[in-house]
Amino acid sequence: MANTRLSTVPEDRLKALVDAANQDPAAFKKVSRAVTVCQGGFLNATYIRDRNPVMIDEPPQLLGTDTTPNPSEHVLAALGACLSVGYMANATAMGIAVEELRLELEGDIDISPVWGVRRETPPDQVAGFTEIRVKAHIKADMTPEQERELHERTLRWSPVANTLRNPVRVVAELNP
Amino acid sequence: MANTRLSTVPEDRLKALVDAANQDPAAFKKVSRAVTVCQGGFLNATYIRDRNPVMIDEPPQLLGTDTTPNPSEHVLAALGACLSVGYMANATAMGIAVEELRLELEGDIDISPVWGVRRETPPDQVAGFTEIRVKAHIKADMTPEQERELHERTLRWSPVANTLRNPVRVVAELNP
Repeated sequence: MANTRLSTVPEDRLKALVDAANQDPAAFKKVSRAVTVCQGGFLNATYIRDRNPVMIDEPPQLLGTDTTPNPSEHVLAALGACLSVGYMANATAMGIAVEELRLELEGDIDISPVWGVRRETPPDQVAGFTEIRVKAHIKADMTPEQERELHERTLRWSPVANTLRNPVRVVAELNP
Repeated sequence: MANTRLSTVPEDRLKALVDAANQDPAAFKKVSRAVTVCQGGFLNATYIRDRNPVMIDEPPQLLGTDTTPNPSEHVLAALGACLSVGYMANATAMGIAVEELRLELEGDIDISPVWGVRRETPPDQVAGFTEIRVKAHIKADMTPEQERELHERTLRWSPVANTLRNPVRVVAELNP
């Protein structure tokens, strides 16, 4: 364990979380909430619980001030963080000490509809990410079989990976 | 315009962006990139272009240090910001001055699989957001017809709303 460079996830608390989910899985159905407030132009602050707001902007070529990455880039960040949490959690449960964990992500997106402003966009044009590729690099002492299981469990159950893979119903109202 | 409280999107640059997309829509096919690095436990830093890293954590009940919202909450922030950008862009193109813009978001999620650690999770269990509800509040001088068009265009073409509504292919490799 001398080379372990990452602080670990507490095993006992992870086990307690799994025990609680087994006891009462219905209690793990949650509603996440957020409030986004436009700060002017394309800069937005999103308030979640009592945390500092998540600031999201657009780059100059998309008419923003580039103070932070843009909305689609934040989706990549959410996926990267979610997969990292999954690898760490599953590694902990499997007794694998992770020394380093880094993920490279890239996503294909066609922004030619210009948010709906471009009237000439073909009606069948696809907007949003179509494919996201991830290369995860984990330095840890594990067998090829453990590596395979770690990867499969993480991918299968990552909340954000599933949010992206599966169609999510988005219901929106303006000035309800 | 005396009551306009939000700084606006530059109309001429928005029109130039649409003209460029009409001239060469293929040039608007982009690849977004991000690198996520685990900082230890469930805290992650995601590096995007040369911007400050996007920090994503987990709350204490999910064994994190709660320094920022968690991955799924960041997905809500990305959606809120993307819709806000869409409303502002389309309002600008339609000559509508927006005084205030705020979005309330909530998403249903079942976290009982505990990232794949819970071996007893039913194999058909759905992970990730299943439904996200949005209430947008826009203060602006516009007709009901304009309001309807503004909403429809924004929803139809929002990159993040489409990323969520449509199935995205997520291809991941571990230690390739």
